[in-house]
Parts: sequence; C-alpha cells; structure tokens
Amino acid sequence: MDAADHSAATGRPSLDLSLDAAALTAALVDLPSESGHEKALADAVEDALRALPHLTVDRYGNNVVARTALGRAERVVLAGHIDTVPIADNVPSRLDADGVLWGCGTSDMKSGVAVQLRIAATVPAPNRDLTFVFYDNEEVAAHLNGLGHLASAHPEWLHGDFAVLLEPTDAEVEGGCQGTLRVVLRTKGERAHSARAWMGSNAIHAAAPILARLAAYEPRKPVIDGLEYHEGLNAVRIEGGVAGNVIPDECAVTVNFRYAPDRTEEEALAYVREFFAGCGVAEFVVDDHSGGALPGLSHPAAAAFMAAVGGKARPKFGWTDVSRFSRLGIPAVNYGPGDPLYAHKRNEHVVVDRIHHCEERLRAWLTA
Amino acid sequence: MDAADHSAATGRPSLDLSLDAAALTAALVDLPSESGHEKALADAVEDALRALPHLTVDRYGNNVVARTALGRAERVVLAGHIDTVPIADNVPSRLDADGVLWGCGTSDMKSGVAVQLRIAATVPAPNRDLTFVFYDNEEVAAHLNGLGHLASAHPEWLHGDFAVLLEPTDAEVEGGCQGTLRVVLRTKGERAHSARAWMGSNAIHAAAPILARLAAYEPRKPVIDGLEYHEGLNAVRIEGGVAGNVIPDECAVTVNFRYAPDRTEEEALAYVREFFAGCGVAEFVVDDHSGGALPGLSHPAAAAFMAAVGGKARPKFGWTDVSRFSRLGIPAVNYGPGDPLYAHKRNEHVVVDRIHHCEERLRAWLTA
Repeated sequence: MDAADHSAATGRPSLDLSLDAAALTAALVDLPSESGHEKALADAVEDALRALPHLTVDRYGNNVVARTALGRAERVVLAGHIDTVPIADNVPSRLDADGVLWGCGTSDMKSGVAVQLRIAATVPAPNRDLTFVFYDNEEVAAHLNGLGHLASAHPEWLHGDFAVLLEPTDAEVEGGCQGTLRVVLRTKGERAHSARAWMGSNAIHAAAPILARLAAYEPRKPVIDGLEYHEGLNAVRIEGGVAGNVIPDECAVTVNFRYAPDRTEEEALAYVREFFAGCGVAEFVVDDHSGGALPGLSHPAAAAFMAAVGGKARPKFGWTDVSRFSRLGIPAVNYGPGDPLYAHKRNEHVVVDRIHHCEERLRAWLTA
Repeated sequence: MDAADHSAATGRPSLDLSLDAAALTAALVDLPSESGHEKALADAVEDALRALPHLTVDRYGNNVVARTALGRAERVVLAGHIDTVPIADNVPSRLDADGVLWGCGTSDMKSGVAVQLRIAATVPAPNRDLTFVFYDNEEVAAHLNGLGHLASAHPEWLHGDFAVLLEPTDAEVEGGCQGTLRVVLRTKGERAHSARAWMGSNAIHAAAPILARLAAYEPRKPVIDGLEYHEGLNAVRIEGGVAGNVIPDECAVTVNFRYAPDRTEEEALAYVREFFAGCGVAEFVVDDHSGGALPGLSHPAAAAFMAAVGGKARPKFGWTDVSRFSRLGIPAVNYGPGDPLYAHKRNEHVVVDRIHHCEERLRAWLTA
C-alpha cells in the first residue's frame, strides 16, 4: 500500500521517500517535532526505513538506527537530529518562487534528515557500508541528547570508520569542533561598611588581576589537518556586591575557554588553571566541560569524502555532536544543506538547490 | 491634671518629663514609633512641650520644634529623630540588674530624645537660646526625612549657631561627617558567540583598567579641625554577562566614594571623574550623592561645648544628618548616649549611666 494508505491503516504519520529531497524536507517540517515531542516523526522515520529491505532497523526511545550489512571494507555513519527548536509561527513550510523553502527546521536540520532518508532509500548497494542515525533532543540540555543516549546504551550501533553529521554548514565541509570549558573563578574579601572600608577587604578589587590577565590574552590558532582553529578565553559573566554601602566579600568571574581539538579536556583544564595562577583566585569551579573533536580529515574515508564533495574544508569553531563521535573513536565532520546563520530563527530557510547538491555529492561519494 | 489624667481626657498618650532620663527613655521605647508611624509619639512630645511655659512650640507633620526666646547671644539646636527601625521582638523595654536598658530605639535614639526632653523641661533659663527639634523618618529613604522637610518648609525654625545631634556616639563627640557619592561606570562591547569571540568585543575585559585603578587606590586622610578623616573609594557592585556562551556587550561597576568634608560635592565628583580618566568608561552615571559636613569645632559655641562635655572629638566617617545642618550653614556634631555598634540590632541597648552622663554634661554646658 502507499504511504497515505499506510497512514490511514496504522494511525501513524508516514513519509514517502520517493519524493525529491526538497519535497521530503517540506513533509518533515510539516510534521512538527520540537525537542521532547519527536515520537510521531521517529515513528514515521522508523516505518519508512523498515520498508527498505536492504536495511536493518533498530530503535531506542525516539532514536532510530538503520544499517546495511554488505561486508564492505569501511563503514560510514550519516547522522542527524530530528528535533527542532520551538516553532515560531513558521510551520507549515512554504516554498517561494525563488526556490527557497521556509519554516522551522528547514535549515536545522530537516533538510539534512531528508538527504539521509533519500540516500537510505536510493542507494541500496553503496561502496561503503552505511549506518543512518536519527536522534532526538539535540536542541536541549546535553544530558537529554539522543546521540549521547545511544552512545551509552548501544555503542555498537554507532560503530564506523567515519561519520558525517548533516548539520547546517551551507554545503561546505566543517571539520572537527573546538572544545568548550566554563569555569567560575571566585575571589574572597571581608564585608565592612563602605564608610569604614579599611575594616574590610574588597573582593571586587581582588578580581582586578583576573580581568587584567583576560584582557591581555592572546589566542592560539593551531593548524590541524590543514584547518586553522582559533581559541578564545573570555569572561562571560561577572557578579559581585552586597549593597550600595557594603564592601563586598565575594566576586565571581565566569570564563569560557573555547579550545582547539589538539588539546584533551585535561590539558584544557590545566591550561586555564595555569593561566590564572597568581591572580588571587580563591575558588576554581568547573561549571561545564565538553571536549573538542579532531577533524580526522587525514582518514582515507574522509579524504575520499572531501574529493567527492569538493570545496575546501573549514574548521568548526562551535561545539557540535561530532565531538560525541570523536569520543567513540570515529572521526567526524559536519556537512549539510542548511545555512547556519538562519538556524533557530523565525525566518529560518534553506535554498532548495543546496539540498539537491548535498544529496547528489553524497550519492557520488557512496557510489563511485 | 497629671499625665495619666491628661491621657485619659484626650485619648493621646502622654509623657511625664519629671521622670529621670532612663525611665523616660523606657517610656519612649514603650511607645512604638517605627518610621512612618510616628504620630502618637509626635503627639505626646508636642503635648509635653506645650505644657512648658518657657517654650514656643511649632509642628509640621510629625515634626515638632520648641524654642526659647531669651535674647541670648547664641542659639544652640538640640536635634533628634523620633522614629526607629522595625521592632524585632525587642519591645517593651527591659532594664536589667546591671543598669542596661534593652529594646528597640534604646540606642538609636530614644535615649538621646529623652535627654533632649529632660533639658527642655529642666533648663528654663539656659545661657544660650535653645531650639529642640524632634523629627520623623530618619531611618528610611532620604526624601522622607523630617529634618529635610523642615529645612525646606520652615528653615527659620532651624536657625542657630551650632547644633548637637543626639545620635548614638557612646557619649563621645563625633565631628562633622564624610560625604558619600555613588557612581555607576559602564563599559561597552559587542556581543558575539563565545565560540567566535573575535567577532565581538568583551565589555567585562574592558572593565579591567577600572578594577586595576581601584585596587591601586591610596586613601587620603586629611586632618580637619584636629580630626583625622579617612576617605575610601570602592567598588560595591559589578555586573556583566548575557549568557554562558555570549561575549558580553556591557559591564557596570558601581563605586562608592566616601570623602572628607573639606571637599565640596562638585570637587568630589570631579575627583572621581578624573580618577577613572583613561579607563575606557563609556558611561558615567551619578546614582546617589550626599555631601559631607565640616566638624565646625573651631566655632566658639562648639569650643565651649567641647570644654563642657570633655573627651576628645572623633571624626564621623559615616554620613549623618549633621550634613543637613551644615547645608544650612550651622556647624553640627553628633553626641548621644547610645552605643552605635548596637543600633538597628535585635540586642539594641543603652547603658543607663551614659544617659545620665550626657544629660548632666549638656546641662553643665547650658547653665555654666
């Protein structure tokens, strides 16, 4: 039976993978799946994949994994999240006369998911074994992330030699990602009435060396696999003060270190500790830490991928889920049709040609 | 009729000025008068003073002013506020076996008010004309202050050559007061994602020179009329930050300058502006400003006062209402029986001997 009949019979929404990738993107957008509400879409994805005889399908929560088992020398993972940020009056989707598709998730990242599904449906005998991963809760707190849950519960499902995350990159390859470490540095003092300041000790003044050192920071820009990363060490918050007439006894400076993927998490932490040595920091508390991911472009599968998709890889400065693959020992890149500048925006959109371009380039790589 | 009969006849509480100053303090404490609720006490004070034939009594709101008109060469003002901070389970008053009177307002400053009332009742022919001022709302926002209202509406009622404010000073003379200026210094930057910090400009880092300059500040300690003041310039608050992954575009440092009374308000402001010159301050906003008051101890009336009360005058570091007299051209000092360390505290108390001592010293001065 066709998709509409299937839907009528089961009460579950269905997806027609014979649609072209742009129409499929529109269908995905029109099936809302804000974070935490991915079940209907996960059901539809699972049903559509189970209908493909060359794939083995597994499901864990609202995460769906489909694999070929052709005994190829290499296995490639194509991954994407199926959730979106909250809809902002931008669903259903709308295709304009200029070939631009508008709507929540068009860029981040239902156009990427559509490309995954089209490859799954149309490349039954790829030159590398394929694993398709569709996961939930990427747009919310890290502990909810479906890829993280899969990596914990079923790491063998994610096994592979190389991974492509179809996050929006404007159809350019973005390699690896920088790590991010957030630390709260506290200085201490002693309260006193500000009319008799010499009876106390000012914790805000004590933060002066911390800010001076930050202001003098020079970022490192290492080149890794040919990509120039760009580190950053910044105060993102400062707070201190009790009342308008009280010498403050505490000041907290929150700093965010964005570091190139040639540093391990331990090295990054040691660097920040050392950077603020002698600044009078009374308390050093790690608030948040996610390691980076090496671009892995020297891997043979990656080199073939680069040759197939063309263009010049760029470094990824922000943290992305490629880091999770990196932890599993799988080099990974971001490569997807969406424009990252419009992700999470009311006017989110994708250029339809970009979707077809990505699909065509991936197909070329996997069928060469 | 006596006080109790008067009270029964009018329904207004009454005060018996023939009580000794400690018992009168207890009676005042037992007639609650938290800021904004001074009417009953103002009524009682007014009635008690109107019963004294040598005084002319005026009232404005809950402020009561009583004056002799003996044609003396000098006029002295004895002033005190009749309100208290909120009661904290410490009313009614309690006199212990060691001669300590406990309760809300015992120190700040119903013991001082009791001394004023005792002098009013028992010194009908002082050697200097006397003006007694009882005012409300001293413990709350400056714009509510009764002394300020009197100074605006009836400045002639406050006329005098010298003023004594019976605020708690532990029966030591405290001369003048330091000024207080609060300024918000803002630095500006440009937001960017912290993964691409170089696209923005960090306003917290831009505050580094402000903190460095504050940390290097050396206080001036000028000697005025023999009293050593002690200035202070302190950050009392700092705030900046947008989110954990955003380069902040604004940081605000609130500084409090406590300055000796040889600086005018204009000079204090100019000093602070100049102090932070070249620190990259994008916005300089005066949040609060109250000038200081010279101790005025070189005035003949003050010299006679010092000789009569004895001891060595101390500088007053905190801001007090003597500054309001200073603005009216009247030198003023603080001199009262309470212990300032216990003002506003649950365990507020006054040593009864101190009350008698102050009363006796003032009487000696005014009858010599």
